[in-house]
Amino acid sequence: MDLHFETISGVGALMRAGEVTSTELTELMLARIDALDPQLNAFITVTADSALDRARLADDELRRGVDRGPLHGIPIAVKDLFATAGVRTTGGSKLHEHWIPDHDATAVRKLTEAGAVLLGKTGLHELAYGVTSINPWFGAIHNPWATSCDPGGSSGGSAVAVAAGMAYAALGTDTGCSVRQPAHCCGIVGHKPTFGLVSKAGVLDLVWSMDHVGPLARSVDDAAVVLDAIAGPDRCDPYSSGADQRDTFRSGVHSLAGTMVGVVRHHFFDGHGDVIGVVDAALDSLRSQGATLVELDITDITEAGAAIDCISAEAAVLHRRDLHERPEAFSDEVRGKLENDQAISVTDYIAAQHFRRGFTSRVERLFDECDVMATPTATIVAAPIDDRPADYRYHATKNTSIFDFTGHPSVSVPCGFTDTGLPVGLMFTGAMFDDRGVLGMARAFEQTTGWHLEHPPL
Amino acid sequence: MDLHFETISGVGALMRAGEVTSTELTELMLARIDALDPQLNAFITVTADSALDRARLADDELRRGVDRGPLHGIPIAVKDLFATAGVRTTGGSKLHEHWIPDHDATAVRKLTEAGAVLLGKTGLHELAYGVTSINPWFGAIHNPWATSCDPGGSSGGSAVAVAAGMAYAALGTDTGCSVRQPAHCCGIVGHKPTFGLVSKAGVLDLVWSMDHVGPLARSVDDAAVVLDAIAGPDRCDPYSSGADQRDTFRSGVHSLAGTMVGVVRHHFFDGHGDVIGVVDAALDSLRSQGATLVELDITDITEAGAAIDCISAEAAVLHRRDLHERPEAFSDEVRGKLENDQAISVTDYIAAQHFRRGFTSRVERLFDECDVMATPTATIVAAPIDDRPADYRYHATKNTSIFDFTGHPSVSVPCGFTDTGLPVGLMFTGAMFDDRGVLGMARAFEQTTGWHLEHPPL
Repeated sequence: MDLHFETISGVGALMRAGEVTSTELTELMLARIDALDPQLNAFITVTADSALDRARLADDELRRGVDRGPLHGIPIAVKDLFATAGVRTTGGSKLHEHWIPDHDATAVRKLTEAGAVLLGKTGLHELAYGVTSINPWFGAIHNPWATSCDPGGSSGGSAVAVAAGMAYAALGTDTGCSVRQPAHCCGIVGHKPTFGLVSKAGVLDLVWSMDHVGPLARSVDDAAVVLDAIAGPDRCDPYSSGADQRDTFRSGVHSLAGTMVGVVRHHFFDGHGDVIGVVDAALDSLRSQGATLVELDITDITEAGAAIDCISAEAAVLHRRDLHERPEAFSDEVRGKLENDQAISVTDYIAAQHFRRGFTSRVERLFDECDVMATPTATIVAAPIDDRPADYRYHATKNTSIFDFTGHPSVSVPCGFTDTGLPVGLMFTGAMFDDRGVLGMARAFEQTTGWHLEHPPL
Repeated sequence: MDLHFETISGVGALMRAGEVTSTELTELMLARIDALDPQLNAFITVTADSALDRARLADDELRRGVDRGPLHGIPIAVKDLFATAGVRTTGGSKLHEHWIPDHDATAVRKLTEAGAVLLGKTGLHELAYGVTSINPWFGAIHNPWATSCDPGGSSGGSAVAVAAGMAYAALGTDTGCSVRQPAHCCGIVGHKPTFGLVSKAGVLDLVWSMDHVGPLARSVDDAAVVLDAIAGPDRCDPYSSGADQRDTFRSGVHSLAGTMVGVVRHHFFDGHGDVIGVVDAALDSLRSQGATLVELDITDITEAGAAIDCISAEAAVLHRRDLHERPEAFSDEVRGKLENDQAISVTDYIAAQHFRRGFTSRVERLFDECDVMATPTATIVAAPIDDRPADYRYHATKNTSIFDFTGHPSVSVPCGFTDTGLPVGLMFTGAMFDDRGVLGMARAFEQTTGWHLEHPPL
């Protein structure tokens, strides 16, 4: 396999065997970025010099016997929504185009402490408030499987960096779909952890009660390695669960035989036939490996969609001052959305939050009847940048946003391709704080199918 | 001691020794209610027949060796905000004047299963939305220590029933002050448990994210007996913490010696001198028993007050339909408050909820520096029904509402009397889910001071 498409454990083993250095891996990634990114536009900022410094330090440490674990010396990328000390952090917005934070977001600091090498900051939808990665200030990002297509969003740059072999893993954020749907569009793994499991301190907020930080990677184990590094309580984040998560998320072995997989066809399987066909075949594969599929139902799912729209009013709070003082620093699209959010009534918002409590409890109870749920990640594939279907936003977000709303852990894993050669993701969702179980199921599926070994021809 | 002022464990021991029956205790309470309630007006509905039936059943069970524990055969009262199957439940409102639920609130069901005998439903502020127990539909309730005075609110009827020896304990609800402030005004114990510890299923809602159910009793142990019966997860309440609480809250022995007691003078000790003098003497008593007082500060407490006012917008959601269709079923006072709530902006509400997360974390961290906090429960005593000071609402609620906002467990315990003979409460507040620690401190204070043994001359 090409070294740039290796797994983290693969290059880690090579590094520890003395066959490659972190510096060489970093140079390889930087060369890939130089070669491919003029076309793909995954990065807003490339931190080549500091990356090489950090890689040399990692090599030095390893020579001296200091091993920080599986991320030691591994080049990674971070969505430009995470504060990085001394490195411009734009949020994909004109508002922050000149902002150079004096601190790292907690997740970035933890990755650095774990030895990871930051290659740069990846592009995204303006302020992460959208389902594509078409950005009026930093340009559109291109899908490596079909460069006329969008890679999904808002964490499109992170997804493209990983899918195209320009980074071994990346951080994204997921408020409605923004880790898992780009993972689906780009044929990689994207995990949205349980709400509160990973600190959001130092990440530009979008919708407080729905924002999540999560990893994008080329295998479930690689995603789990990143999650291991970033999970855990953080007093700097009032939304941190406080629950200390001492489990490792790696190498949880799940046998598909005997596993109860919940399937909610209503809502989750309403979508474009090409995607549904691929996911149905994936369900057949689960069944043939011994999993038992259980048809389940979630009531009130239409009301949940309406409630999610009300809860986006939170975005208007964060930007109310800038909307008033610097309206020209927003695109018409995002300004329009924020103005709509401001017009939501307080009683509708509160009713939505109240509904959310009961709905979340009802979803949690489903996991008494199954180990995990399996659904399409999205019910539409990556769309042409210049020609998105009218129902794109609906089909790109309706399955993922439900679990941003409830907070349940949810991972998208590659499960095949449509006839047009675009990737499709299968999403496993589990009970609150059962990130390990969800990743374990995704790993078992991945190992029996091998779809994650397909890479774009770049 | 008069039997009607005995503790639950005291009458329980007499019952088990064959010296009194549940039927006799119930008859005693019903006779007290007949004699005193025409003047005090604590009850909206007295369920004499079903209480006597239930008491006879309890006596039968005990004779057959069936002992349901410390509440077996104990006559208690319940605020008329809790649904009771087959018994009218008014919420103190004209809206519900004819409502006869077909189910018990979870807390009521649990008390019944624990053997308690329901004497009746106690009066309250209209819809529990106020700091007094002056009710336009059911009349004012009178304080047994000074019958021209209000007993505090909104759970005034429950507090009066317990203080006047018309029930051994009672259930109340606390959204801004409504268990603890009536306890303070009536010289009894009132405990607001950690948010989510006690189910609210079947209780008429006021402000979802601040409503709590809690016991009123004449001693800390009696309150703990009730809490033992009603605490625990409940799938019918989306706000239930889900944390199973296997501790008993009874008989947690705390020595005052060596205990770190946090004292936040700013805000909490701003108040009427008569009350502050009594509470300062109580702090001296803690110190003389070996407790160490630690001066602490809570920043942003003024902002917390403003945020609490925004969060009351939740009340408008619950009543928006009735406000539109049946405006005459609300008093001018409550209708005016609900209309103000409807006018709160969605961005102010959301900003308040966001502020709340950080503020709650900061308060939680104070308990790294002390075991419990001690403050006045309220900074004003019970007021004349016909002549409340202009600052009454502020001083009656500002100390208690902070912990409805944060969800921390908080108990008011009698700590003396002003020169005018009105009771004063000392409030102990602890870390989340440390209800046992908070009650243990209150018990230790109670046992060294004995203020809870004082009763009104009725």
